[in-house]
Amino acid sequence: MSRSSTIGRYLVQRLEDTGLQHVFGIPGDYVLSFFDMLVASKPIEVIGTCDEQGAGFAADGYARVNGVGCVCVTYCVGGLKTLNAVAGAYAEKSPLIVISGSPGLSERRRSPMLHHMVRDFNTQLTIYEKVTAASAALEDPVIAASEIDRCIDACLKTKRPVYLELPRDMVHTPIQVPTPAPAPDSDADPRVLKEAAAEAIAMLKAAKRPAILAGVEVHRFGLQDRLVKLVENTGFPVAATLLGKSVIREDHPRYLGVYEGAIGRDSVRRAIESSDCLLILGAFMTDINLGIHTAQLDPAQTINATSQRVSIKHHHFDDLDLGGFIDALSKPRWTGKKKPPKPPAPRPFKPRPEQPVTIRRFFQRINEYLADDTMVVCDIGDCLFAAADLTIHRRTEFLSPAYYTSMGFGVPAALGAQIKQPHVRPLVFVGDGAFQMTGQELSVIARYGLNPIVFIINNHGYGAERYIHEGPFNDIPDWAYHLLPQVYQRGWGTEVRTEGELEAALVQARNNTTSFSLINVHFDPLDVSDALQRLTARLAERIAYDNPGKGAAKPKRKKKPASRAKKQTAG
Amino acid sequence: MSRSSTIGRYLVQRLEDTGLQHVFGIPGDYVLSFFDMLVASKPIEVIGTCDEQGAGFAADGYARVNGVGCVCVTYCVGGLKTLNAVAGAYAEKSPLIVISGSPGLSERRRSPMLHHMVRDFNTQLTIYEKVTAASAALEDPVIAASEIDRCIDACLKTKRPVYLELPRDMVHTPIQVPTPAPAPDSDADPRVLKEAAAEAIAMLKAAKRPAILAGVEVHRFGLQDRLVKLVENTGFPVAATLLGKSVIREDHPRYLGVYEGAIGRDSVRRAIESSDCLLILGAFMTDINLGIHTAQLDPAQTINATSQRVSIKHHHFDDLDLGGFIDALSKPRWTGKKKPPKPPAPRPFKPRPEQPVTIRRFFQRINEYLADDTMVVCDIGDCLFAAADLTIHRRTEFLSPAYYTSMGFGVPAALGAQIKQPHVRPLVFVGDGAFQMTGQELSVIARYGLNPIVFIINNHGYGAERYIHEGPFNDIPDWAYHLLPQVYQRGWGTEVRTEGELEAALVQARNNTTSFSLINVHFDPLDVSDALQRLTARLAERIAYDNPGKGAAKPKRKKKPASRAKKQTAG
Repeated sequence: MSRSSTIGRYLVQRLEDTGLQHVFGIPGDYVLSFFDMLVASKPIEVIGTCDEQGAGFAADGYARVNGVGCVCVTYCVGGLKTLNAVAGAYAEKSPLIVISGSPGLSERRRSPMLHHMVRDFNTQLTIYEKVTAASAALEDPVIAASEIDRCIDACLKTKRPVYLELPRDMVHTPIQVPTPAPAPDSDADPRVLKEAAAEAIAMLKAAKRPAILAGVEVHRFGLQDRLVKLVENTGFPVAATLLGKSVIREDHPRYLGVYEGAIGRDSVRRAIESSDCLLILGAFMTDINLGIHTAQLDPAQTINATSQRVSIKHHHFDDLDLGGFIDALSKPRWTGKKKPPKPPAPRPFKPRPEQPVTIRRFFQRINEYLADDTMVVCDIGDCLFAAADLTIHRRTEFLSPAYYTSMGFGVPAALGAQIKQPHVRPLVFVGDGAFQMTGQELSVIARYGLNPIVFIINNHGYGAERYIHEGPFNDIPDWAYHLLPQVYQRGWGTEVRTEGELEAALVQARNNTTSFSLINVHFDPLDVSDALQRLTARLAERIAYDNPGKGAAKPKRKKKPASRAKKQTAG
Repeated sequence: MSRSSTIGRYLVQRLEDTGLQHVFGIPGDYVLSFFDMLVASKPIEVIGTCDEQGAGFAADGYARVNGVGCVCVTYCVGGLKTLNAVAGAYAEKSPLIVISGSPGLSERRRSPMLHHMVRDFNTQLTIYEKVTAASAALEDPVIAASEIDRCIDACLKTKRPVYLELPRDMVHTPIQVPTPAPAPDSDADPRVLKEAAAEAIAMLKAAKRPAILAGVEVHRFGLQDRLVKLVENTGFPVAATLLGKSVIREDHPRYLGVYEGAIGRDSVRRAIESSDCLLILGAFMTDINLGIHTAQLDPAQTINATSQRVSIKHHHFDDLDLGGFIDALSKPRWTGKKKPPKPPAPRPFKPRPEQPVTIRRFFQRINEYLADDTMVVCDIGDCLFAAADLTIHRRTEFLSPAYYTSMGFGVPAALGAQIKQPHVRPLVFVGDGAFQMTGQELSVIARYGLNPIVFIINNHGYGAERYIHEGPFNDIPDWAYHLLPQVYQRGWGTEVRTEGELEAALVQARNNTTSFSLINVHFDPLDVSDALQRLTARLAERIAYDNPGKGAAKPKRKKKPASRAKKQTAG
């Protein structure tokens, strides 16, 4: 049995089937016909951004809260601009469907040199093969439907981006769509799960100080409820990796905090590293997650379960469902649950109105500002490390590219996240350097009437890098960021230097519910978080090692950051 | 004979040898040690941009005026952001050296998951192989110097980008640098040139209406003087392709204008297509250059010479030097040179102060505004087609990505071009859509005290696309662009709706020599150039062909461009 459709119509229908309500992108002549079909779709709204890079980050942010995202662009001049954002989604397992138009097959025959072409017509496809879990050029109507199915299924299964390229003269090509076959049974052998779970349970039961370290896959595969059940049934304390931060609500009594080796808080490090049986669930063992390899984790005392395999001590079980494994560990009766000690109530923050804002006290204050209807979106820089210690009230509502660490993620990702959840208010922390990369997407946020509160962590340069390795290249031009609402003709902005000004701005931003708020917070260029001090000390050791003449970096501050300008204009 | 150096030091020295005075880029921890070496270089200044995309376009613009450009970025999060700009440089033969840091070889062994990594450590290298003429990862000290030589030589020879990846722990690795061997003699066989030139000369001598069509390779290979000599010796009329516009100064008496098939001016089309022997020099036969295949050029009456081959009628000569071929054609005594008819003096532009500015009259006015110390930089959109008819006073001073047609080129390319030539003032024409992509690089222009005059061709949306195919996706948020100088804290801006306001703005911008000027020129959204009307009629025919249900596009204007915002906020 089959029914008639067209390649374009079938692709739109499959996007609708995933539950997508928004597609991000910028049109171009090779993709205009398909844009028409997206616009005609009832459930799907097309969200235009300023630049394709912004569309990529926005779709990634959307995918992280929605479970799948989609970006649609034109050939090469669109698709290659999106590549970095898609690469980040690949590295951090964010399920993204990338659709690109391409030159019509008939016009390719007529002319070998069509605009937007780089080397040959396959350039973009072969590039995207490097950063996706599956990819296809929809050039053959006989297999187009099954290729679409294969790629979208791979996206949903692996939680990684996939790429579909649609020549503009194939959009309306008729195809026969087979009735979908029932989903195949899982090919996992239940005996593998049983054996692995039995061994893990025995090991955990024998342990004196078992603990859990939860990673981002718990979120990507929607296992948060099962994790909570495991934590509550076993009574084990639980920490999160930086990338996995907020996979469990952070005011949960068993929650320890973010573990990141020697970079993270000492209490979390001690609890995890002193465990005699650590259960790691869905975590990427990346350098940043592991505190630039300062983590002291002994594989002989570790059960490490991911979506791909479960490793116990030094042996591995493959083809094993992560959710099923978590469930199996929840089942036994776990005794000896100690009531967790009640954490000391944090001392309420008392602003010192005349005092300049510092990174440490700013984030202490923000911790009280979080509410059940807020989420945190962090760009890369000191704001990420400082924000690691925020206590996230809601589950899975801390977004940041903590592994791939691409700057420019924050503002467009907040657009993507809030488009999907208009009633959850993003608090966006973005350094001045990162804001200069993609901050213009704030005008799109304004256009759609969204109301995030954007904090520019303005340390007048690449502050994190300044700490690792000072040089004139870490200086950037200073903008009056808070005047951007006048340019975008919407939104509200202010600048803040003291704690008193910060208090006033926080109140005003909270009350400004109809548009974005932009708070330009000035910090001393050398004021950094405790976590960054620990991290950069580690990184500087490495650079000193690579660069023996220089010794460990000591941040030095030049007197005039923009002094090179003079040299130039004289030239 | 050889001498000692390090990989990093040798690379900097080779960059210096090419005559580079500026390198564009943004630092990151994998490339910080190499940035130090660039900063330490006396002839080279490092120019930071807001985003790596801007660095790529700026280096491309620099390469087009300087003969070679360089962009230096960090691994993946930098390199993949630059990819689209580099792909454009590949497509349009702009000689660009791309340098990326990468994780140290020793740390790769210690950990398989380092930050900024996508799939494996080769991902970025294999991607760049697709958009460069040569590439190398400098991982082996024994061959590092020869790999650097190979890539930089390929860049200078092919006028295409090359890619060098430098692991951060190899920067200071000692190497032995061999004394450079004398440059090998050209492997071109002089008899090939002789035979081809003799045939071409005979064909041109027999022709009644010979003409020349000059393309961008004349500029890339520095053959402008030789082209002028050929034109003056032969007396042939000469037209330029759009990508090659301004390879000859446009007030030259033999210059016809830009040829682009049915899209271009009718007088140029007639002169070129009625020629019974057309000599094409260094032109890419692209769809845009050929007016979306409306060009009527008969190969049997054509001599087509590029840097790769010379084709006469239907046969080809390979391995033939383009400059040598042009010289050979200049040598004979050409008789029968007709004095070119003196072109009618253009009627001086008389502003009508109360009248709204239109595209046609705006560019007529700009034509008089051009001076010997200005150059034109055009982004993609109607401004490119409209600007095609400007009369460029200086040679090789019209920059635009007319083949690859990537939006966002204009502002950063102007930065790159003026950094190299501080006393040549760019007039930058950029649509509102393109400005929203990379316009923030204006703050870098401000930082270095450059003084371009940036005209926002503000037709409130993707105006060119609106003409091809209307849809809500062509609407974009309106910015008060002219207020950006307040955000950047430098520069001067104004907005213009009438011809009277335009006159005032032009005077003020001319006098503002110490900073950039930003003129936000409002146009009716449906007001387009004559050239765009012709082009989009051709494109719409093609889309109608791909999209049979829809008929040819007729631009329709919705009443409220931003009406979707409401739908969203209600969601």
